[in-house]
Amino acid sequence: MNMCWRTRAGMLNKKYDIILFSEEAKGKDFLTKIEEKKPLFICVIGTTETAKIPGISAAGKYPDVTDLTPPADAELLLLGLCKCIDGVPVTPEGIPTPALITMSILNLANIPALVVSGGVKVNPHTPFIDVGGKPGGDIRAGKAVENVEEVLERARIAGENLSKVADYLVIGESVPGGTTTSLGVLLAMGIDAKGKVSSSMPNNPHELKIRTVEAGLRAAGVKFGSLADDPLGAISCVGDPMMPAFAGLVLGAAHRIPVLMAGGTQMGAVLAVIKALRKDVLKNLAIGTTRWIIHDKTADLRGIVAQIADVPILAADLNFSDSRFMGLRAYEAGDVKEGVGAGGLTIAAMAKLKGAISKVALLKEIERNYERLVASK
Amino acid sequence: MNMCWRTRAGMLNKKYDIILFSEEAKGKDFLTKIEEKKPLFICVIGTTETAKIPGISAAGKYPDVTDLTPPADAELLLLGLCKCIDGVPVTPEGIPTPALITMSILNLANIPALVVSGGVKVNPHTPFIDVGGKPGGDIRAGKAVENVEEVLERARIAGENLSKVADYLVIGESVPGGTTTSLGVLLAMGIDAKGKVSSSMPNNPHELKIRTVEAGLRAAGVKFGSLADDPLGAISCVGDPMMPAFAGLVLGAAHRIPVLMAGGTQMGAVLAVIKALRKDVLKNLAIGTTRWIIHDKTADLRGIVAQIADVPILAADLNFSDSRFMGLRAYEAGDVKEGVGAGGLTIAAMAKLKGAISKVALLKEIERNYERLVASK
Repeated sequence: MNMCWRTRAGMLNKKYDIILFSEEAKGKDFLTKIEEKKPLFICVIGTTETAKIPGISAAGKYPDVTDLTPPADAELLLLGLCKCIDGVPVTPEGIPTPALITMSILNLANIPALVVSGGVKVNPHTPFIDVGGKPGGDIRAGKAVENVEEVLERARIAGENLSKVADYLVIGESVPGGTTTSLGVLLAMGIDAKGKVSSSMPNNPHELKIRTVEAGLRAAGVKFGSLADDPLGAISCVGDPMMPAFAGLVLGAAHRIPVLMAGGTQMGAVLAVIKALRKDVLKNLAIGTTRWIIHDKTADLRGIVAQIADVPILAADLNFSDSRFMGLRAYEAGDVKEGVGAGGLTIAAMAKLKGAISKVALLKEIERNYERLVASK
Repeated sequence: MNMCWRTRAGMLNKKYDIILFSEEAKGKDFLTKIEEKKPLFICVIGTTETAKIPGISAAGKYPDVTDLTPPADAELLLLGLCKCIDGVPVTPEGIPTPALITMSILNLANIPALVVSGGVKVNPHTPFIDVGGKPGGDIRAGKAVENVEEVLERARIAGENLSKVADYLVIGESVPGGTTTSLGVLLAMGIDAKGKVSSSMPNNPHELKIRTVEAGLRAAGVKFGSLADDPLGAISCVGDPMMPAFAGLVLGAAHRIPVLMAGGTQMGAVLAVIKALRKDVLKNLAIGTTRWIIHDKTADLRGIVAQIADVPILAADLNFSDSRFMGLRAYEAGDVKEGVGAGGLTIAAMAKLKGAISKVALLKEIERNYERLVASK
């Protein structure tokens, strides 16, 4: 760990192209712990009716397409192409899924991956770990997720067993509408997250998200903070099916090995759930995300996490400004930003190979896959 | 590897209480490769209508109970108790499932476990890897397993990814009626296995098994050996849903790491499938079983395997003669004998701990769990 300098966003570690965005000392420690170690990547998928509220999610051109985005992401990771859809998931503007980044890095750094289904309408054409979850409802009804306790417990058992083989876990997610359900859980648990959650769109529809969550809280009879000690209740009312599966994996693994929670502001909600259930694992956690999330002026990941725990935030210094593809350069304008563990897995790859993967090599591999899967369609 | 001496059954390695039953030199090499290494245990479960033919299987007191044995075994492994049934699975005589052995060893040697479902009627209350399989039919119809190619491919992807985290895999199975479906696949592929497959009952119902398989082969229009080059066809006609999942896991992993195929004569059918698909992985395989299987005078594991490949057979020198429980002493009389990877996992535990687990300590732990789960009911 050397050659660090301060940037607008935080301390930049040049060797790894990783930004220490908050809790810098703890972030450095975490990077030291995972250096040259072998990670296992797990992508937790889920779908919800919440994602189909017009304007909430950019994960599909039409609301119903959000049911296909998570299984398609899983296919892209494990098969190198999608089977349940043609091409790859794109935003309404045609910007491709961050799973394209994640998949490229899995290949480049030879990192193994598993998929865990928290509850999806359409199963992926891949192996996946079933933890007994069902697709999520519309949070406006105040009854969003079934079977939360059982899903958390089954995922915990999976995490426990996987923690005995992997050096550490990197866990990412694919759940459309996930920042809205995260806002729901954060507010129910008493964390001020209004106007702070991120979006996969350049124009973050904060008002729509807040309106949606407030309808759900009202329907469930929940006030700001009234479920601070009942994280499973918060997920049941206004969360999504990714959350109990993700939290269970962390709870099962992080008492033994480090876990990098790979995602943006959604990690805030998962972290709040974990903290309420088992504080002693917090010291083994870090959040790994992208530069696009920490530069997002419409959101405040640091502000959310600081209210919960002193868990470090690391960001991969990904930069697509020089890409020859418009669909990748769009990430620089605030499209997509993060998802499917893209930021965290980039960090893991850089730590595994001690910086032998450069940002340039990474972009080349992503462009190669972009060309094969998107540009040629 | 020292202190070996010849016994009736084969070369006994005293340090490990492991019998080198065939291909001794290769067996020794395999043990050297896995010594002190960290295994991952995978239990592949499946159910079939074949198991419900009266007299075929001892995996349930009543035929329909065979649908519950594999998920109950999975629960015993991962939860330490069964949820889908009271107590644990027992034979009609009340002899408990070999999952009791496997579970005890997982705990004793701190070995991680995953469950893969090849296709079951009732899902376990545990996390499990779904590979797209469906429960199997009755082989007498000649159309026993759906979706074989896809299940094999998805399991291959899971095996490939898991091979990047584990030092080696130990794969076991729980599928009632499995020796009959194995006889089916072996005959379809031209391996003389009549009167050679084992049974979970002391009186091996060879004639019933042969009659059942011959009905299936007739219905499918298959002659002895006519599917020698079509292993997927053989499974589709007269196999069971454990087979493509098991074979896929081996194919995905064994080009990179050793795989111990943990089971009795059913491993013959899986091995024949693997050999027909990818010969180069055979050198990384061994079969791990129990002393009860290699002492079984009603069956001939060595005779089956020798027709397929020079893969070594190792047997754990388990002995329950001195158990204080009748239900365990019954194993010495030929009840149950093997299943749920009991023999192979015992070998893995002995190799992991370099003999620090004695047969006596093992029996004590098994008796402790027997007392808790069986004797107290």
